[in-house]
Amino acid sequence: MATATEADAMRRAIALAARALGSTSPNPVVGCVILDALGHTLGEGWHRRAGGPHAEVEALRAAADAGHEVRGATAVVTLEPCNHTGRTGPCAGALIDAGIARVVYAVADPNPTATGGAATLDAAGVDVEGGLCADEAAAGNAAWLTSVLHHRPFVVWKYAATLDGRSAAADGTSRWITSAESRADVHRLRAEADAVVVGSGTLRADDPHLAVRGPLPERAAVTQPLRVVVDTTACITAEARVLDDAAPTLVAVGEDADTGHLPGVEIARLPRDKTGVDVHALLTELYRRGVCSVLLEGGSTLAGAFLAAGLVDQVIGYLAPALLGAGPGALGDAGIGTIAQAMRLDITDVTRLGPDLRITATPVTTSEES
Amino acid sequence: MATATEADAMRRAIALAARALGSTSPNPVVGCVILDALGHTLGEGWHRRAGGPHAEVEALRAAADAGHEVRGATAVVTLEPCNHTGRTGPCAGALIDAGIARVVYAVADPNPTATGGAATLDAAGVDVEGGLCADEAAAGNAAWLTSVLHHRPFVVWKYAATLDGRSAAADGTSRWITSAESRADVHRLRAEADAVVVGSGTLRADDPHLAVRGPLPERAAVTQPLRVVVDTTACITAEARVLDDAAPTLVAVGEDADTGHLPGVEIARLPRDKTGVDVHALLTELYRRGVCSVLLEGGSTLAGAFLAAGLVDQVIGYLAPALLGAGPGALGDAGIGTIAQAMRLDITDVTRLGPDLRITATPVTTSEES
Repeated sequence: MATATEADAMRRAIALAARALGSTSPNPVVGCVILDALGHTLGEGWHRRAGGPHAEVEALRAAADAGHEVRGATAVVTLEPCNHTGRTGPCAGALIDAGIARVVYAVADPNPTATGGAATLDAAGVDVEGGLCADEAAAGNAAWLTSVLHHRPFVVWKYAATLDGRSAAADGTSRWITSAESRADVHRLRAEADAVVVGSGTLRADDPHLAVRGPLPERAAVTQPLRVVVDTTACITAEARVLDDAAPTLVAVGEDADTGHLPGVEIARLPRDKTGVDVHALLTELYRRGVCSVLLEGGSTLAGAFLAAGLVDQVIGYLAPALLGAGPGALGDAGIGTIAQAMRLDITDVTRLGPDLRITATPVTTSEES
Repeated sequence: MATATEADAMRRAIALAARALGSTSPNPVVGCVILDALGHTLGEGWHRRAGGPHAEVEALRAAADAGHEVRGATAVVTLEPCNHTGRTGPCAGALIDAGIARVVYAVADPNPTATGGAATLDAAGVDVEGGLCADEAAAGNAAWLTSVLHHRPFVVWKYAATLDGRSAAADGTSRWITSAESRADVHRLRAEADAVVVGSGTLRADDPHLAVRGPLPERAAVTQPLRVVVDTTACITAEARVLDDAAPTLVAVGEDADTGHLPGVEIARLPRDKTGVDVHALLTELYRRGVCSVLLEGGSTLAGAFLAAGLVDQVIGYLAPALLGAGPGALGDAGIGTIAQAMRLDITDVTRLGPDLRITATPVTTSEES
């Protein structure tokens, strides 16, 4: 049975893991805290980037650097220690070699190539306990877990709107509906995502740049997301800001699109459906490119297509305390005709950001879907 | 200088006052707590209805009924004790006669016919202090203060919408967007208002009843609000549910409307503007009828007219965690064409009601308006 001190350490490990969101794909985010028998922290670490040391190894190294003896200590880690040798050695082995006596982890590793760490530790005589703060840790790794289990990226749809649901005024102007605090928070979301996706309507209306602007509190390094423009008929011009070299960019077009005016631009040709590029095919293509998490930034048509396809895992709305009474809505046609078909969500968080509200919600899975 | 015990008593008095919101017009809501020298409560009371005893008299009576001696005690009251003899005697005199030694009040009485109570008390040798918890007490009496200072009712615009700002689905269905908890809260709002106002569009779409259904927690008695239908061309039929006898009803029509099909129905004939009945004239008429507070329930066109006229004092939005992607918006044309003209508000409260969010906001008064 895990102690209260171990639970505190696990929450710390979850927070450490989150620092690297957006920088570890296709790996998970992982945090680790090493405790002595009295519950004092000997070392802590987190997985910073794919190819870099795993969290357990970082934490063991931090303890060693501080001159602490870890033999007999407890390792608290957000994910079951891996059992395989990839770009780095297996963490289970590293913990055994260091003489760790007890390992407490939150979430079991569902990845068939990495699982088995708990069994290996147990066989080596280490006291192993799983499931501590499992829901919190799983939420922190939602993107990676979704990609492993469903072979597609985790999709967050972000929108900004007035209290009456408008994302722009009647004349199309929208700068700025939300506050500087909300816009800074969107940069954090971008940094935590592997890819940022917009449709061609947003591209034409706003000519967005989509790169992350720092500095971002709580993040040592910023990894720029892949910028993805869904542009079925390749309307984008070579002068679009999103095609600069601040971050990589992918233009997703229909199979038959003419892209002759876009030399040197990374193009993905995808099947079309009745509204544009098939969104399932888009996510499959992004997953193939190692994208575990997508921030869907707009516009309303693309968001409607994703929602209608059941491909939105989380909704984050920035609501400005303003009213417009006219202008385009934040969400376009999602195939919903009557109130009984309304897409229901659960609100998981409400946070004040300056004058605005940020509402985080998760679509409710109906019995037919589950 | 008021004590912490007196401040606690004032907050209690403010809460007591609020129990009678919607039942006291054209009087304010007032609460009173009598404290002995040690800060113990000897009696408390609140003004329950116009024509009934004032809060101070209720509190003195409660103390006497409990066998407490109030000579030398302190009266803590949300509003400056009145100085005039209306349907009841002046409270300042009642407090003096009872031998109260100290009076602490929150808000000065701006009403020219009632003011002067503090001076009367002071002249009689009572220790008088004003301004304790004045902002909280003024917020609790916002409706009455607005009506006294601006000679029109305080207007709350209430709407219910999805996260994407839709108040109904594409086919017009809207039952139910929000939860049972939110709908119960709307009944509380109705009970606290002197009048509930809807437009003819809502009347046709929903055939609403608009009476208060109880029971309502924290309220001993429910006063039904005046139901007001803004129906410029008198489209309402005699069978409309709002015309039953559950509560009084007023139909506001244009000066030239034909109301021959509405025998026995209370009619107000009002000047028209380009969109319908002039909303300034409507509020003046309601004020003339003793209405200090209006709950504007819909629909989107009427709300747009009120907002465009600068006649909304508070916005209360019930946001359901749902998405529709199509359907009518919560707010219609408010004369706003571009983002710089957006009506800005301050969010003053965010409360979870079951699965929903209730957002309370106050329009920001711009420098041109103030």
